[in-house]
Amino acid sequence: MYEGKAKRLYETSEPSILWVTYKDQATAGNGAKKEAIAGKGQLNNQITSMIFRKLKEKDIPSHFIMEVSETDQLIEKVAMFDLEVVIRNVSAGSFSRRLGVDEGTELAFPVLEFYLKNDELNDPLINDDHVLALNLADQKEIDEIKRQAHNINNSLIEIYKEAGIRLIDFKLEFGKTAKEQIVLADEISPDTCRLWDEKTNNRLDKDVFRQDLGDIIPLYQEVLDRLTTDQKEK
Amino acid sequence: MYEGKAKRLYETSEPSILWVTYKDQATAGNGAKKEAIAGKGQLNNQITSMIFRKLKEKDIPSHFIMEVSETDQLIEKVAMFDLEVVIRNVSAGSFSRRLGVDEGTELAFPVLEFYLKNDELNDPLINDDHVLALNLADQKEIDEIKRQAHNINNSLIEIYKEAGIRLIDFKLEFGKTAKEQIVLADEISPDTCRLWDEKTNNRLDKDVFRQDLGDIIPLYQEVLDRLTTDQKEK
Ligand SMILES: Nc1ncnc2c1ncn2[C@@H]1O[C@H](COP(=O)(O)OP(=O)(O)O)[C@@H](O)[C@H]1O
Ligand SMILES: Nc1ncnc2c1ncn2[C@@H]1O[C@H](COP(=O)(O)OP(=O)(O)O)[C@@H](O)[C@H]1O
Ligand SMILES: [Mg+2]
Ligand SMILES: [Mg+2]
Repeated sequence: MYEGKAKRLYETSEPSILWVTYKDQATAGNGAKKEAIAGKGQLNNQITSMIFRKLKEKDIPSHFIMEVSETDQLIEKVAMFDLEVVIRNVSAGSFSRRLGVDEGTELAFPVLEFYLKNDELNDPLINDDHVLALNLADQKEIDEIKRQAHNINNSLIEIYKEAGIRLIDFKLEFGKTAKEQIVLADEISPDTCRLWDEKTNNRLDKDVFRQDLGDIIPLYQEVLDRLTTDQKEK
Repeated sequence: MYEGKAKRLYETSEPSILWVTYKDQATAGNGAKKEAIAGKGQLNNQITSMIFRKLKEKDIPSHFIMEVSETDQLIEKVAMFDLEVVIRNVSAGSFSRRLGVDEGTELAFPVLEFYLKNDELNDPLINDDHVLALNLADQKEIDEIKRQAHNINNSLIEIYKEAGIRLIDFKLEFGKTAKEQIVLADEISPDTCRLWDEKTNNRLDKDVFRQDLGDIIPLYQEVLDRLTTDQKEK
């Protein structure tokens, strides 16, 4: 049905259900850097599935239905908003570069950003007026997306904290179900979150790939293991 | 006291009053392109003075006190917000480029944008959360600046329309008086507004300099003449 940079989506016999396969591919700079990395699809599927399950326990719904194999999930098909929703707890990456704030600076409150999801335009930062003028969402939808995103941030901070990880920032995507409900969709993985070790501040995320700092597989595995151990201890 | 790209500010014997001289200099791309252009300072001083007077007639206050020579004004000294406030009625320039909207497309409503006023960082686009997190203004100030900016847009559209000119977009700066009033400051000229001839859509603004399309002096003179004639007719 659709092949993206990190996943492939397939229709199923149920019109409202999609089959998603996580690919062994890493990209950065909007596809400028691209590499096949064996084992990545599997890890991101397992981490994302784990996180969607943990969010559900905290009463946060998402498109996630179930894990069907090491690399595959069933998800609810939704009409995606062409938006990337970023929340930042600590300054890093493009925020630090664009605004001249040192990487690692705690922000006074979780800063929310919208980006236009458009590869050709390089996913530009936009404001609420742009969202409205470009008809990406209406005011009620903007308010609901922001509310959910902040709520998800609070839960994700807890989930990662229990795994000894600081949640620096992350990207979410939302969609609308057949019943016009706005729900969390896409993935939540070290590809879409900046994750720093609580004690050492070592990077456990895609920045290691972006900046050629080493092999990401052991790091993603570490994130999965910590999330899993934490789960088993309960 | 301070020399900027387009003006020089001097203290006066009155602590609350500044003397401003408009320079014969044009810059574009944040100073990347820079040229001395004889007569420009005079025209921008006269156009800005005229517009601040016309806004005052419409009960919109500003820092403007009086024109003191062909190139000079007295203005009220204010504590500037490190913000550039842009309103767009029609898509053009960076809005068109960044968001893939054809230049000349009428926007559904006047779109307001904040930019961080910081030459080193190249005046990046920011959202309301950034304004708050960077302590550039608080929520009440943001609301007041937006209210005034939209109000000014309505008046500027009228003022230019009476001169046969379409107001495509423009940049404003605001400051806070000693009495903590937020007022319009800086300048309003063909350097800071996109102005298209109502009939031909010919450019009457700094885009002609930015894009090397010809001599700006006759165009800025045309804007001044049209604003003046309009005034005399009344
Ligand atoms: N529940 C869903 N329903 C429909 N589309 C979805 C859902 N969840 C994610 N998507 C979309 O699946 C596509 C594939 O994901 P990905 O490989 O990350 O693509 P991209 O390269 O566009 O980011 C993306 O366009 C994403 O928005
Ligand atoms: N009423 C005012 N009080 C104090 N500063 C002002 C006032 N109006 C404008 N300014 C500031 O005057 C400076 C000089 O203007 P300009 O030459 O356009 O500078 P720049 O190159 O920084 O844009 C700018 O920093 C502007 O913000
Ligand atoms: Mg993606
Ligand atoms: Mg200026």
